[in-house]
Amino acid sequence: MQPLQRKRQAFPLDMLAVNRASGEHLSRQLYHGLVAIIRNRTLAPGSELPSTRALAAELGLGRNTIVSAYDQLVTEGYLANRQGARPVIVDLPDGPREAPAEAPPVPLRSPSRRGEELLSQPCHHGTPGRFAFHPGMPDAASFPFGVWGRLVARRASHGETLFGTYEVTGHPALKQAIAGYLFSARGVGCRPEQIVITTGAQAAFDLLARLLLDPGDPVWMEEPGYYGAKAAFTVAGARIVPIPVDQERGWRLDAPDPAPRLIYVTPACQHPLGITMRMEERLRLLDIAETGNSWVIEDDFDGEYRFQGRPVPAIQSMDRSGRVIYVGTFAKLLFPALRLGFMVLPPELAERIANALSTTGQFAPLVLQAALADFITEGHMSRHLKRMRRIYAQRRQLFRFVVEERLGREMTLSPAEAGIQVVGYLRPGIDDIKVSHAAGRRAINVSPLSKYFQNTAPTQGLVLGYAACNAAQTIEGVDRLAMAIRETLS
Amino acid sequence: MQPLQRKRQAFPLDMLAVNRASGEHLSRQLYHGLVAIIRNRTLAPGSELPSTRALAAELGLGRNTIVSAYDQLVTEGYLANRQGARPVIVDLPDGPREAPAEAPPVPLRSPSRRGEELLSQPCHHGTPGRFAFHPGMPDAASFPFGVWGRLVARRASHGETLFGTYEVTGHPALKQAIAGYLFSARGVGCRPEQIVITTGAQAAFDLLARLLLDPGDPVWMEEPGYYGAKAAFTVAGARIVPIPVDQERGWRLDAPDPAPRLIYVTPACQHPLGITMRMEERLRLLDIAETGNSWVIEDDFDGEYRFQGRPVPAIQSMDRSGRVIYVGTFAKLLFPALRLGFMVLPPELAERIANALSTTGQFAPLVLQAALADFITEGHMSRHLKRMRRIYAQRRQLFRFVVEERLGREMTLSPAEAGIQVVGYLRPGIDDIKVSHAAGRRAINVSPLSKYFQNTAPTQGLVLGYAACNAAQTIEGVDRLAMAIRETLS
Repeated sequence: MQPLQRKRQAFPLDMLAVNRASGEHLSRQLYHGLVAIIRNRTLAPGSELPSTRALAAELGLGRNTIVSAYDQLVTEGYLANRQGARPVIVDLPDGPREAPAEAPPVPLRSPSRRGEELLSQPCHHGTPGRFAFHPGMPDAASFPFGVWGRLVARRASHGETLFGTYEVTGHPALKQAIAGYLFSARGVGCRPEQIVITTGAQAAFDLLARLLLDPGDPVWMEEPGYYGAKAAFTVAGARIVPIPVDQERGWRLDAPDPAPRLIYVTPACQHPLGITMRMEERLRLLDIAETGNSWVIEDDFDGEYRFQGRPVPAIQSMDRSGRVIYVGTFAKLLFPALRLGFMVLPPELAERIANALSTTGQFAPLVLQAALADFITEGHMSRHLKRMRRIYAQRRQLFRFVVEERLGREMTLSPAEAGIQVVGYLRPGIDDIKVSHAAGRRAINVSPLSKYFQNTAPTQGLVLGYAACNAAQTIEGVDRLAMAIRETLS
Repeated sequence: MQPLQRKRQAFPLDMLAVNRASGEHLSRQLYHGLVAIIRNRTLAPGSELPSTRALAAELGLGRNTIVSAYDQLVTEGYLANRQGARPVIVDLPDGPREAPAEAPPVPLRSPSRRGEELLSQPCHHGTPGRFAFHPGMPDAASFPFGVWGRLVARRASHGETLFGTYEVTGHPALKQAIAGYLFSARGVGCRPEQIVITTGAQAAFDLLARLLLDPGDPVWMEEPGYYGAKAAFTVAGARIVPIPVDQERGWRLDAPDPAPRLIYVTPACQHPLGITMRMEERLRLLDIAETGNSWVIEDDFDGEYRFQGRPVPAIQSMDRSGRVIYVGTFAKLLFPALRLGFMVLPPELAERIANALSTTGQFAPLVLQAALADFITEGHMSRHLKRMRRIYAQRRQLFRFVVEERLGREMTLSPAEAGIQVVGYLRPGIDDIKVSHAAGRRAINVSPLSKYFQNTAPTQGLVLGYAACNAAQTIEGVDRLAMAIRETLS
């Protein structure tokens, strides 16, 4: 014991007091005490620590407890072991360094210019828990969670085959199921290998923008148009060229100058107006794309919900030259929090896409892909879709009726017959942003139509999701909305 | 009937023959026939169609069948309705246009320059179904799928609250659970709001590269280093500056010129070497970052699996100035196909990140987030982790033993004591790429160490995942690997 006795003055044994009543392991308590001694330079770099035997005796601890703490300090580089000698405190470059409870107010590294652009895009995800009219929101109460839970559970409980590495472009069974669904429901003919599963449509737009656009490239966007896609093209550096769309005149596709590098359209159910692109416009669009050698992104976010006649076939089905990329989502067919979407790529791009996906990490959990494949192939999706078409048609009709009755003078609903949202045009003098704020205070979540305009003077209106509201909610919601509108007028 | 009779020569009734035995609805068959007549210009634009009554009589069909087909053609823009008159064929701009069975060999729109870069990155996801040694692969047979399936099923079956819009930065319950886990297991102190859930670590790297880097920015990367992160920084336009790392000398952090904008490190368990950054190196790294005002990404992909002593605390816990971004993944703790990871951001960046996530669409399914939160808070993760530490420690020991016995002359395993993969250094004259190909032909999936070098002459070696192999598989796998190595020598 003599060596330690002699050093007693110098060695801060009191900093190594352990508390046997605390839940923490004794060697861990010792470790923390030694770290403090080293970091605070209570002992200078180069000092020898006591031998494990001596320290154990001094502290009344087992020798293994000391060995374990010393080993950890050696591993982390606080101590250096020398052959046959006692461990020595390493000369650490910068004295004490303790994490502050809160980050201190020092000047911080800022994001990149590109990062600032990304961080400045609008966050276009609605406030959860609002009472009514969230645009694009399907009905939760009608979803067959029993069936879905059973399918997910089956796959999750026997997950050995859905465990490790897999095709980053998507689960083959799901691609097969989607290809079959697309052919029968949307007229899209493609091989399963052309399908890429994504974590939703927005992830597809972001990836496509990076794949297809260089900074400065002109991109045609509908005006009004979907701001989510616009944000993805904007952060990719695209120059957005607005293509006017309205209820009466449809898509105004004039001779392009310069040719667009990419054209983004929502032909089955225009976002947000809900109108459908006519055959003449589809053919003109494809002609423009062929002439300018442009890519076309067909966003079919809502094309299944058409309440008169059948869904209109996709433009992709008319494409002769492999330039139309079809993007779909299960956010409306199933539900948004599922985070599954897909794109149909031309074969040449499909063959190479795995490398890009592997780099961006934008691929989806396997268990949900497998469960969704089951949901489709076992017929649950088409049953659900058929049922929801009927329910939504009724709700749409009631919604129209109630709005006409209680808001007929302030707002005119678009006659468009597709989609689970509908545009209400406000009469002149009513400000849609003011209305949406006033509505928000009443837990009514509507989008101002002006938000969908970026380059031209906006039409004042509201984008209203009627699909998630039963009769009582519809009536209550329209009443609240009416109060909100009248508040802005008084 | 006279009007139709008179036009009989001109109107191609034979193209409208329906087949009552086919499963297709009669109005749909009629629709297809009429589309063909219009698209092929069998009838010229401007021609009137027969009245619904006349055509119904002629074809022996109900009048509603004709009305439904005409309505659909009007919706899609093939026909124009005129008040009180028969519908007229629209003059479509470009004659027939039918989707070909296969895309024709016309010149295609190419990707952007940025897209070419993305498509040219290596696809770093292994071949599924290989027999042994896939780097970084945890053990499927030991995963508690029963518990996991039950937790997922509970959330999926009662999904009403996990249905619609939600916080794009992640499920609050999961953030809370991760914050607790990080504090106790990794020494990372953060508030739940600083945590962002991502679809895996790679998605975090890709997003951070876009947020923090502009083209040309210098980024320090370990050499050898993780090629996935390197790919993300490369496509963001970064200039990669290699920081040499090796078994003996550790991280060689020399005075930087110019200062790095970002430093990417794997301090707890270097990828791929498995060594641990010592305290002196950690402090020097933080000094360099503070001096140059650089961001630091700490990729803690494997830090929980340390087989001597405790896991080493994260660098994030020593950061005084909010510049270290900690990235974690559940790919090793749970399993890769789960696709869940997270990052811990400085508060200033965390506050703004929702806008960027909303634009990139890189956010994760809610049901899996909720189930994972349950898995952590109900104690299943720490039990699983404790069990796997024991199992992997045994497997690691057996693996070392078998390799030494059967491959001792050809390969020396790294002594590093962390992670679920281990590096075997090949003796001079053995080519690691040739070996990995020869091994692949025997269903043995190993990574050549040279793949992790980008800028300097590579060390020849193999990165071997031992964790997913039981004793029999380990012995069989090493035997196959030995055959592969000997094949390359003969």
